[in-house]
Amino acid sequence: MVSLLRLPSLLAPAAARPAALLRHRGRCLHTSPARLCPAATTAGASSAAPVKMETRGGDREGQVTPRSTDFNAWYTDVIAAAELADYGPVRGTMVIRPYGYAIWEAIQDYLNVKFKETGHSNMYFPQFIPYSFIEKEASHVQGFSPELAVVTIGGGKELEEKLVVRPTSETIVNHMFTKWIQSYRDLPLMINQWANVTRWEMRTKPFIRTLEFLWQEGHTAHATLEEAEKEAMQMIDVYTKFAYEQAAIPVIPGRKSRVETFAGADRTYTIEAMMGDKKALQAGTSHNLGQNFSRAFETQFMDENGQLEHVWQTSWAISTRFVGGIIMTHGDDAGLMLPPRIAPIQVVIVPIWKKGDEKGVVMEAVASVQNTLKEAGIRVKVDDSELRTPGWKFNFYEMKGVPIRIELGPRDVKNRSVVLSRRDVPGKQGKEFGISMEPSILVDHIKDRLEEIQASLLQKAITFRDSNIVDVNSYGELKEVISEGKWARGPWSASDADELKVKEETSATIRCFPFDQPEGAKKCFMTGNPADEVAIFAKSY
Amino acid sequence: MVSLLRLPSLLAPAAARPAALLRHRGRCLHTSPARLCPAATTAGASSAAPVKMETRGGDREGQVTPRSTDFNAWYTDVIAAAELADYGPVRGTMVIRPYGYAIWEAIQDYLNVKFKETGHSNMYFPQFIPYSFIEKEASHVQGFSPELAVVTIGGGKELEEKLVVRPTSETIVNHMFTKWIQSYRDLPLMINQWANVTRWEMRTKPFIRTLEFLWQEGHTAHATLEEAEKEAMQMIDVYTKFAYEQAAIPVIPGRKSRVETFAGADRTYTIEAMMGDKKALQAGTSHNLGQNFSRAFETQFMDENGQLEHVWQTSWAISTRFVGGIIMTHGDDAGLMLPPRIAPIQVVIVPIWKKGDEKGVVMEAVASVQNTLKEAGIRVKVDDSELRTPGWKFNFYEMKGVPIRIELGPRDVKNRSVVLSRRDVPGKQGKEFGISMEPSILVDHIKDRLEEIQASLLQKAITFRDSNIVDVNSYGELKEVISEGKWARGPWSASDADELKVKEETSATIRCFPFDQPEGAKKCFMTGNPADEVAIFAKSY
Repeated sequence: MVSLLRLPSLLAPAAARPAALLRHRGRCLHTSPARLCPAATTAGASSAAPVKMETRGGDREGQVTPRSTDFNAWYTDVIAAAELADYGPVRGTMVIRPYGYAIWEAIQDYLNVKFKETGHSNMYFPQFIPYSFIEKEASHVQGFSPELAVVTIGGGKELEEKLVVRPTSETIVNHMFTKWIQSYRDLPLMINQWANVTRWEMRTKPFIRTLEFLWQEGHTAHATLEEAEKEAMQMIDVYTKFAYEQAAIPVIPGRKSRVETFAGADRTYTIEAMMGDKKALQAGTSHNLGQNFSRAFETQFMDENGQLEHVWQTSWAISTRFVGGIIMTHGDDAGLMLPPRIAPIQVVIVPIWKKGDEKGVVMEAVASVQNTLKEAGIRVKVDDSELRTPGWKFNFYEMKGVPIRIELGPRDVKNRSVVLSRRDVPGKQGKEFGISMEPSILVDHIKDRLEEIQASLLQKAITFRDSNIVDVNSYGELKEVISEGKWARGPWSASDADELKVKEETSATIRCFPFDQPEGAKKCFMTGNPADEVAIFAKSY
Repeated sequence: MVSLLRLPSLLAPAAARPAALLRHRGRCLHTSPARLCPAATTAGASSAAPVKMETRGGDREGQVTPRSTDFNAWYTDVIAAAELADYGPVRGTMVIRPYGYAIWEAIQDYLNVKFKETGHSNMYFPQFIPYSFIEKEASHVQGFSPELAVVTIGGGKELEEKLVVRPTSETIVNHMFTKWIQSYRDLPLMINQWANVTRWEMRTKPFIRTLEFLWQEGHTAHATLEEAEKEAMQMIDVYTKFAYEQAAIPVIPGRKSRVETFAGADRTYTIEAMMGDKKALQAGTSHNLGQNFSRAFETQFMDENGQLEHVWQTSWAISTRFVGGIIMTHGDDAGLMLPPRIAPIQVVIVPIWKKGDEKGVVMEAVASVQNTLKEAGIRVKVDDSELRTPGWKFNFYEMKGVPIRIELGPRDVKNRSVVLSRRDVPGKQGKEFGISMEPSILVDHIKDRLEEIQASLLQKAITFRDSNIVDVNSYGELKEVISEGKWARGPWSASDADELKVKEETSATIRCFPFDQPEGAKKCFMTGNPADEVAIFAKSY
């Protein structure tokens, strides 16, 4: 219907584009060609000539590439079709669209309360950091300098000192902590900020790895190592609970290997999630920074005995990457599947009527059901658009992963009942007919169903995870397990060099030494030496 | 107590520094010398040598420069003493500390709900904008190009196209809108984002004008001019209500002159607030962008008749500048004075006991009162620190502008009552003794007082505003009024050149043509020609 497209992001994979559009067109998902396009580029965004693009009727019914056919294509297709995000004009950047942002807001709402309950205050640090700051902590600069975006011009003039756009804030935080912390009475200092950060990534993927992303970063300073360690563990625990209880993602919490530890930390704790393609996703981290930054920035305090000491610190973060984790954990061929507790829409009501005189009674009942659910604190949306058919809406909200759909037509009004469909149970099995409209009955029923769906998504993910983690006792076994795309778990006490060798030969890395360890004596599967712990190896995002 | 200070920001005004610290020390405001220092510089932050600084007993009692003595010094002193913000290491940047950020969160919480109620969704656009985008809208580039921060290096390499760190997002928003909008069915498109923005300002002032600041920016696209105009007016109305009802700031809403209109807008609406020094603060703006950006970015839609049309747009913003407006509207010599509805702490409880055996009963009563208020939804804090005296705490929470203080000692416990102090009524007049601890009585009493304080702050500000706006009928009168530091209101239909002449000769600008206009025929005070409207002239921040 619209024929003039001017944007290079849509033009770049020119040959593939019309087919991709048609796929969407088939089920009329959206007339707007707002599909994610991996080839957006910085340059020339304005110089591309207008190109005509026809939108003929579709000859394919599938909205998105089937997950089993091509997991990566499925992922980007779902992001486009469910209107979660789009590519920005600068290579590697992402626009988070309202529906995707609403998932992020659900993550924020939960965590923000937990951070405050555990004694943290929000604040805000500037995003421009003097280049010299980054260089102060040796391993930090090594880790981050290849990924920096650098401001060299300000107000039309070349700057005397280049400014780094924050890739993370430890350095500027410590600069300020040094001003604020004088005495043990100023400790602990526990803060958090919600912010954007920039890392110049070469290989980007929406939500998972983008040039700019949103996150929260907690930063704390303590009088003792023990306190800092307790804090780092507390926050990885907050993340773990969030993942299990809200996002229905059965992450494995554990400690990173030395090789995989954050640039500047003594210890990094992580939560590792298994995606639908069995690759691992590092979904959140909490670092015990020891005194690395406090020594680099001279962040000291006078203790109770009048001794000057360096503070002990932590930092911890979860980012918009987590949204990608939710998509890749729960989604299926029909699109997104959202756990009810973080779903922006928990229930969608689709009114169904054919004859004009049916509309009035149906819409009246729809409004009443909507109010009932809203008052009960359920996030409900009515799609009463007359531009789309009920069938189109069914597909669209399945694509959006809305946990429950209510269908309401003239016959339902007569029976004072509704039809329910569960997103997580396909076809007729997921349908319930004749659920009473009586507010108390309907609300209880829907709340029960939402809890069931929440629990069911988690259980399904646990089953999937556990059936794809294999215990190994030799490097050969590890290679086989990894080549099957699964996670390998085995006793490990070998060297950093051995770890890098595994990475080179299998593309798998140590995801973590899980907190949950098997009992009994163990021997390292690589060296045969005694090992205290098992490690989990996997390919990862 | 701490003697080693390593930071140039504290060293720069070396001569003045100890005295400034002493001033704070006198009332023991805070042992941490985290005072704002206007001389922070980018360079050399790490190279300054340690310098010893003595903290002797104070010989001055005033914590901050009196407001009447030096309004600007008072402002920065209050920001430091109330721990609202601090200077960042890069010139012109600001660190928003937890207490200052909590005020911003109160602003966000209110507006976020209003934006959603009026049909807007939150989302997020990348902050890096191709330089070429900025150049597309002629007046936009003229307005913003002198203030840009430019990224020229990414991932260690010189970039092909320089990237602008967003000063505002109209250009990138339109780039994306062009992808998303095809048909009238895609309209209206109404979104908002909470984000940081960067403008390379030469003369900065905490909260009021900083190199980077936080804001929300709403962006909408509509099918008709009328709809866009209605939206622009609706949002300035949301801001006006917020200012009056939450922040107790009696802003004057109106239209900007052509000269003062946003770079790229057809019309700019504004809310103008009078600060304690009678200077004007532009506290929020809403722009009718017409088709300026939609023409520059070819943002078109097919209307119901199949005609391709450019969309009509608006944008509107409120920023952390508003926090500065709150400080400068309500503060007094004793520090900040916060309207209860946006105060992070509405009631502070200070326990008072001398003998060890008194502590138990006092703290028990304190905990009970705290729970009572908390359960009633009142934001309450107990300061039970034993490191500070009650007198110190009284001063500290006055400085922080907490609306109500509760004092609770052994005698109060015996009488089952508390002592109340209102922040806005100094001395004994603001004290109430013997207020019953009985939950229902106490809660009602405090809620009433909070509402009284809220209303009283607004009324005081209205009285102050109205007594400092003077009607003028000649340029001579205007000059006199402006030279007295007041606002001048008079009929105006003169040219842009005349407006610039007024600015040059008096430093005053047209703040707005207020919506609220006097009736009857008017003659321009500058030209004597007929005038449709009065304008308000003032010096401004």
